[in-house]
Amino acid sequence: MTTSATPRERLLDAAGELFYRDGVNIGVDALCKAAGVSKKSMYQLFRSKDELIAESLASRGPSYQALLHPGPEDDRTARDRILAVFERQDQMVAEGNFLGCPYVSTAIELKNPEHPGSVVARHFKQQLTDFFHRELRKAGAEDPATLAIQLTIIFDGASARAVVRAQNLGGIGVVTAAALLDAAGVRSGELVG
Amino acid sequence: MTTSATPRERLLDAAGELFYRDGVNIGVDALCKAAGVSKKSMYQLFRSKDELIAESLASRGPSYQALLHPGPEDDRTARDRILAVFERQDQMVAEGNFLGCPYVSTAIELKNPEHPGSVVARHFKQQLTDFFHRELRKAGAEDPATLAIQLTIIFDGASARAVVRAQNLGGIGVVTAAALLDAAGVRSGELVG
Repeated sequence: MTTSATPRERLLDAAGELFYRDGVNIGVDALCKAAGVSKKSMYQLFRSKDELIAESLASRGPSYQALLHPGPEDDRTARDRILAVFERQDQMVAEGNFLGCPYVSTAIELKNPEHPGSVVARHFKQQLTDFFHRELRKAGAEDPATLAIQLTIIFDGASARAVVRAQNLGGIGVVTAAALLDAAGVRSGELVG
Repeated sequence: MTTSATPRERLLDAAGELFYRDGVNIGVDALCKAAGVSKKSMYQLFRSKDELIAESLASRGPSYQALLHPGPEDDRTARDRILAVFERQDQMVAEGNFLGCPYVSTAIELKNPEHPGSVVARHFKQQLTDFFHRELRKAGAEDPATLAIQLTIIFDGASARAVVRAQNLGGIGVVTAAALLDAAGVRSGELVG
């Protein structure tokens, strides 16, 4: 965070970091302190803490996705591009300080699907499923919609495992996703569409 | 909760319910009020709120497991006994008020694998994996240890999906578990050991 960042940017950065690290129940005082912004300024910039939860989660979405999804320049097969997501998840866990998928954690902590933060979480989780769906269509999978959901389930289950066990995944997410792709006949040799 | 329950039982019941419904950050005052127990009594019965989190989670474990795991009297094949867990999860979500697997939610909210509540969460999550492992050995699966972990991942990923999307699973957990069992050659016809 640079000191030239605006109060709004500093709040979004601090909120994104602290909500992930400490949970959405962290107090507004701690957030404002971390951001170096007064509470009065915070409420001028964001209508409520709930809005800050939603906006900070949304603001971190693109960089989180860039970490996980292979870009368009990655010309491997659809299968390999899908498995790359699980390989990156594995690395992310191995790097330490992994506290779960930020979208799933936020939804679990908020316990209210109508909360603006839960709406953001659902949106970004759907984008992962959409990524899988596009790749599976390219690979000619028979039922890409169902398989994309199943891959998302494996991704989120592997995240949960990393949190509950507090240990590395050791490739189990990659292997499980590969087993499902094998079973659906999505092989490496298939043409990229 | 009957009025003849002891203060300890009332606290464990109220804590189990409120920690699940509202999260582990709910205050001790609200817990004591729900249990009809003074704060002084609470701290005579439990050393700390952390201990109450752990003990209330542990006290609900057996009944939660009884809901999910088929009992020894259920003489279906190992494969069907495994899939029964996913069918029950599907039902549990469909019944409403599903806020995630209580163990995963607790671990995610506590964000500290050394917390006594996280230790309890890990213990019960392992028992689900152990159940799958026993059934897979009976079914003669080639690598029951890995497959048991993979089934646990599907279970937790399906739970996450139910929370994030706030909608029924519609059998997706069952279908995904079945696909993995098919791929591993664990079929219905196999003998129960």
